[in-house]
Amino acid sequence: MKEITAVVRMNMMNRTKKALTELGLDAFYAYEVQGRGKGFVNKKVLAGMEEGYEEAAAVLGEKGKLYPKRMLVAVVPDSEVDDIVQTIIAANQTGKPGDGKIFVSPVDDAVRVRSGECGEKSIA
Amino acid sequence: MKEITAVVRMNMMNRTKKALTELGLDAFYAYEVQGRGKGFVNKKVLAGMEEGYEEAAAVLGEKGKLYPKRMLVAVVPDSEVDDIVQTIIAANQTGKPGDGKIFVSPVDDAVRVRSGECGEKSIA
Amino acid sequence: MKEITAVVRMNMMNRTKKALTELGLDAFYAYEVQGRGKGFVNKKVLAGMEEGYEEAAAVLGEKGKLYPKRMLVAVVPDSEVDDIVQTIIAANQTGKPGDGKIFVSPVDDAVRVRSGECGEKSIA
Repeated sequence: MKEITAVVRMNMMNRTKKALTELGLDAFYAYEVQGRGKGFVNKKVLAGMEEGYEEAAAVLGEKGKLYPKRMLVAVVPDSEVDDIVQTIIAANQTGKPGDGKIFVSPVDDAVRVRSGECGEKSIA
Repeated sequence: MKEITAVVRMNMMNRTKKALTELGLDAFYAYEVQGRGKGFVNKKVLAGMEEGYEEAAAVLGEKGKLYPKRMLVAVVPDSEVDDIVQTIIAANQTGKPGDGKIFVSPVDDAVRVRSGECGEKSIA
Repeated sequence: MKEITAVVRMNMMNRTKKALTELGLDAFYAYEVQGRGKGFVNKKVLAGMEEGYEEAAAVLGEKGKLYPKRMLVAVVPDSEVDDIVQTIIAANQTGKPGDGKIFVSPVDDAVRVRSGECGEKSIA
């Protein structure tokens, strides 16, 4: 059982949801985060920081360097991980910085509260 | 050490918090998510999609199919996992779709920032 | 590959971001949570609960015992975990309750959506 976490552009959520639904993934959660990846860092400012300009460090650390993104979370059987990851890539890949990241993490167990079912049955 | 993540109904948060406090769990975090589980999917719409109606897929993917839910997160010793899971089930089980899910995931280490303590001491 | 999750004070986020940027950590996500740790629990109220006062339990469970905090999440190579944890501690440690917690959890894989790169390359 794995947790798939994807950080995507705000305006890509609808097509991502649609693609995952078409794939048959019904259960997932989404929330808004502020984020940044490698691609968002202004290399000029970074260079300034390496040369010791405190102003550069201040800009990087304190100004609006985090962008609103959507975090999408689903817990799924191991056998579905590859298809879901490929579907999220296909729905979000533009080739430009900011396309997002996908993380796959271990999950020991899941429980459906309604029935008390555990394990893969709870997420089937 | 395990992370317990529970997705519950908005209006169940107070009784869940109260039940966990009575159990002795002091430290946890909560935030709002948009979510959906198996039970939320309109089977009629799904059937439409399987028959190839693009409108059905559009409804599933793009309309308000995600509902506001509360995500509750706690990192706890292995020995407390079962009691906490049972307490969350007891506080949230109505037997109807939307009762929520609980996930248990591995955590390698925790640190209490105030003291720098690591391991189980940091979450005791 | 590890996920580092830190819960810190709202007003510590800017200095934490700045410190992590200076360390060379470019990619992370942040969002607001409601949280509480051990230190937030009013011991007087807790004692009242142990003596069986229902009012005490009600206060603990239902009133404003959760405080707004910031959750910071980064997925990083194993080799960077220690430096990042120490940097977060240094930026947030005041010695008072509420300084926050840091959790380190396993991550199986990461994908950069833009390029499809997997593994450590995707987070380098």
